[in-house]
Amino acid sequence: MNRTIAALLLLFPLAANAQTQKGTPHTMFVMHGGAGTITRQNMTPEAEKHIRDAMELALRTGHEVLTHGGTSVDAVEKAIRVLEDSPYFNAGKGAVFTHEGRNELDSAIMDGKTMKAGAVAGVTIIKNPISAARAVMEKSPHVLLTGKGAELFATKMGLDIVDPSYFWTESRWKALQRELMREEGMKPHAEKPEPGDHKYGTVGAVALDENGNLAAGTSTGGTTNKLYGRVGDSPIIGAGTYAANDSVAVSCTGTGEYFIRWTVAYDIAALVKYRGMSVEQAGNEVIHTKLEKVNGDGGAIILDRKGNFAMPFNTEGMYRGWIGDDGVPHVQFYKD
Amino acid sequence: MNRTIAALLLLFPLAANAQTQKGTPHTMFVMHGGAGTITRQNMTPEAEKHIRDAMELALRTGHEVLTHGGTSVDAVEKAIRVLEDSPYFNAGKGAVFTHEGRNELDSAIMDGKTMKAGAVAGVTIIKNPISAARAVMEKSPHVLLTGKGAELFATKMGLDIVDPSYFWTESRWKALQRELMREEGMKPHAEKPEPGDHKYGTVGAVALDENGNLAAGTSTGGTTNKLYGRVGDSPIIGAGTYAANDSVAVSCTGTGEYFIRWTVAYDIAALVKYRGMSVEQAGNEVIHTKLEKVNGDGGAIILDRKGNFAMPFNTEGMYRGWIGDDGVPHVQFYKD
Repeated sequence: MNRTIAALLLLFPLAANAQTQKGTPHTMFVMHGGAGTITRQNMTPEAEKHIRDAMELALRTGHEVLTHGGTSVDAVEKAIRVLEDSPYFNAGKGAVFTHEGRNELDSAIMDGKTMKAGAVAGVTIIKNPISAARAVMEKSPHVLLTGKGAELFATKMGLDIVDPSYFWTESRWKALQRELMREEGMKPHAEKPEPGDHKYGTVGAVALDENGNLAAGTSTGGTTNKLYGRVGDSPIIGAGTYAANDSVAVSCTGTGEYFIRWTVAYDIAALVKYRGMSVEQAGNEVIHTKLEKVNGDGGAIILDRKGNFAMPFNTEGMYRGWIGDDGVPHVQFYKD
Repeated sequence: MNRTIAALLLLFPLAANAQTQKGTPHTMFVMHGGAGTITRQNMTPEAEKHIRDAMELALRTGHEVLTHGGTSVDAVEKAIRVLEDSPYFNAGKGAVFTHEGRNELDSAIMDGKTMKAGAVAGVTIIKNPISAARAVMEKSPHVLLTGKGAELFATKMGLDIVDPSYFWTESRWKALQRELMREEGMKPHAEKPEPGDHKYGTVGAVALDENGNLAAGTSTGGTTNKLYGRVGDSPIIGAGTYAANDSVAVSCTGTGEYFIRWTVAYDIAALVKYRGMSVEQAGNEVIHTKLEKVNGDGGAIILDRKGNFAMPFNTEGMYRGWIGDDGVPHVQFYKD
């Protein structure tokens, strides 16, 4: 090996590593749009098209950032904003309702290079919670801001503020009414859930940029009929969101309480880091072996620094997709 | 081995295990009262006596629960209530002030047997946040409730509710004024910090009960001058608080943001579980090696199912103590 090549390898260890592994991509971008009772029977062609289009647009948005030399953090934030602005995902605009008929949103982002993280929880007037999470990470000394304090901070940072009614959508409102009727032991009119009417519709992204840096982000409205003030796993670093260059980037979706108790995102990272598991092995161990045993529903997307990724889920379906260097978005909904 | 003994060993595997290990205790109870700039020079004999007396009372309270066949969860809750009721610890009564001059309290509890967990964050009217955390664990479908939602829940559960002014103490108020003056670049009148005037005064407990079940709990007022709505590591399962019978019970104290980003409590558990480290090795790896590298100040108490415990900290001191089967409380403040 001549000196110039050796020097280049020292300067770009990851690129060199990637080149030695045939087919390993330089950038990779993976997203989920929530796990739950997603089956072909529950889906209309119209809903399927809207969801697929939004997923593809979000994937292309992330990919464009990465191919223009943007950071994994940029890609994660921009792509998640696309799904937050769609009414078809339980995040931002399409957030589900709490027991009291409010929309309380949670979000987190983590930068694998610096291990800096930011999160907001229980916010009701921030149009794009993922951007508020990023502002907390970059412009506050804290990691997690909640409620009115988080809203005050986002307002001061100049983020888009909306009236809480912005988050009202008819399908989510009906979903709450069905839950409330079910609680009262009354039979709801519509037995069949609406397309996308699954409790766990969190969105999330994990990215690997040209410089070999990982990032992860998650955004959610939580669960339909949740108690006032309830915070799930999405804004909890180590539970629903995690990224570190020494292991992997992870974003989860599911019954948040199990994901908190089982520290799912960091447990997957720990299995990769301490047990030498692949992203697939670690994901299966936590999502299938550990969580299935206790009926903890959900899934995760996991990405390592070589661009290897896994998308395990133990529910009927999970909106998910990825886009590599070739720029072709791949979107999947069901188990098969 | 005759059949009766074999049957007893099957019924009480842990007791048998403990008996085979000379000197291994049946119950163990360990607490911390916060880490920070705790030095002999900063301490008055009067303050030292108050803090030591409260620590001993809390330790005896936990021990009494355990020796009367109570659960580790009971011991953790009751002992933490003792420190919450003392003005000398940054939890409950002695909580520090936020930037806006409020007291926003956080707490969590986790049951190692069931891996159930409960937590509250940003609460301002709940006298004993640790009891609210327990109520969330046992009487709600959720793990984490925040702000007004958590307060409404605690009120419905019949917990002690106080006026926010209950948490006003002169020493904490002065500490905030000093911080605000320091921020403005003004020299505060009292250069020397008050005894106990360290930013990280969180309290916590870990317990092992007669049945071999672990539990952990943490309660805090957070950090002086924190932003409105800021939540630290204490109520975050896996960051400031964690317990599982397959590994260890952990409660942390320190700069919460680092403890969240490094998933400190669960990382210690993961090192024990996946790398086979002792409580001491795992604690040192995270508190000294990992956190010291990034100036993440603080400490942790760690307890395994054999009663082995460690109390690592990378600050000048940490209020800490333990009490075993002999019922003698041991309290330490400084490094030596």
